[in-house]
Amino acid sequence: MKRYQSLVLVACLAVLYLDAAISLGQGGTKAVDAVRAADQEWMKVFAAKNLEKSVAFCDESGAVLSSNAPAANGRDAIAKLFSGFFQLANLKISWLPNRADVAKSGELGYTSGAYEMTFNDPTGKTISDKGKYVTVWKKQTDGSWKVLLDIFNTDLPAGT
Amino acid sequence: MKRYQSLVLVACLAVLYLDAAISLGQGGTKAVDAVRAADQEWMKVFAAKNLEKSVAFCDESGAVLSSNAPAANGRDAIAKLFSGFFQLANLKISWLPNRADVAKSGELGYTSGAYEMTFNDPTGKTISDKGKYVTVWKKQTDGSWKVLLDIFNTDLPAGT
Repeated sequence: MKRYQSLVLVACLAVLYLDAAISLGQGGTKAVDAVRAADQEWMKVFAAKNLEKSVAFCDESGAVLSSNAPAANGRDAIAKLFSGFFQLANLKISWLPNRADVAKSGELGYTSGAYEMTFNDPTGKTISDKGKYVTVWKKQTDGSWKVLLDIFNTDLPAGT
Repeated sequence: MKRYQSLVLVACLAVLYLDAAISLGQGGTKAVDAVRAADQEWMKVFAAKNLEKSVAFCDESGAVLSSNAPAANGRDAIAKLFSGFFQLANLKISWLPNRADVAKSGELGYTSGAYEMTFNDPTGKTISDKGKYVTVWKKQTDGSWKVLLDIFNTDLPAGT
């Protein structure tokens, strides 16, 4: 009798454990909110031209795929790319996701939306750009979300 | 006694069921292979300028984010965008993923890699472009993978 009780207990605990693991990992509203929040936190440190924090938002194996440049793979290449952006005179940039989701397992998600930026070219002329982006996010072991892939392009006609 | 045996059986079946569900849904090699295969199947029908099949690869709520154009949201807008591409004279296009993954839950994945394309401009001059892309894939209820988001941009310097 005791053996069966123990078996029932072990089996039930296993069921409860697996069930909890699935529930905790589920995409759900909280996870989507978290990935949207990460998207906007990243935007804030980027808009503030904080190179260290902007790069720290990227996963170790992250890549940023900028227009008019080869892919920046890894944090060193990303730091170089972001440095170039931050050197643009009077750079103002913001973005906002209009869609976001997280896999049911809770470790992979994406945000996508629109960006706007202005800067001054070497002659002082204001250059305005607007476009769209997709960011793929990977949840880290500490629960934070980091950028696995980021890519964007302009809405403006070629040559503008 | 019988009651406990039944409980053990039910609990064990539940454990086995959940375990199987997790294993089947896991990112794993098979799922990543499937999403890579979908990426290349899509490329083939696109390169063949098959509009119907190219659009059918997109999820109902899918979006294609092309450079120099606003986002194409939904299949009608995507069809219009692809039609424009397919009208480019002598269009030749191919792409190949260099990274791909699928969430452990098995319903969300991505591919990312490089594309190459050439076409003739209205004067007959050959225009060459190469760049990179990210595609976010959603597994459908029938097990097939469809495009939730697709975005790409050029490696070439602006104005080339």
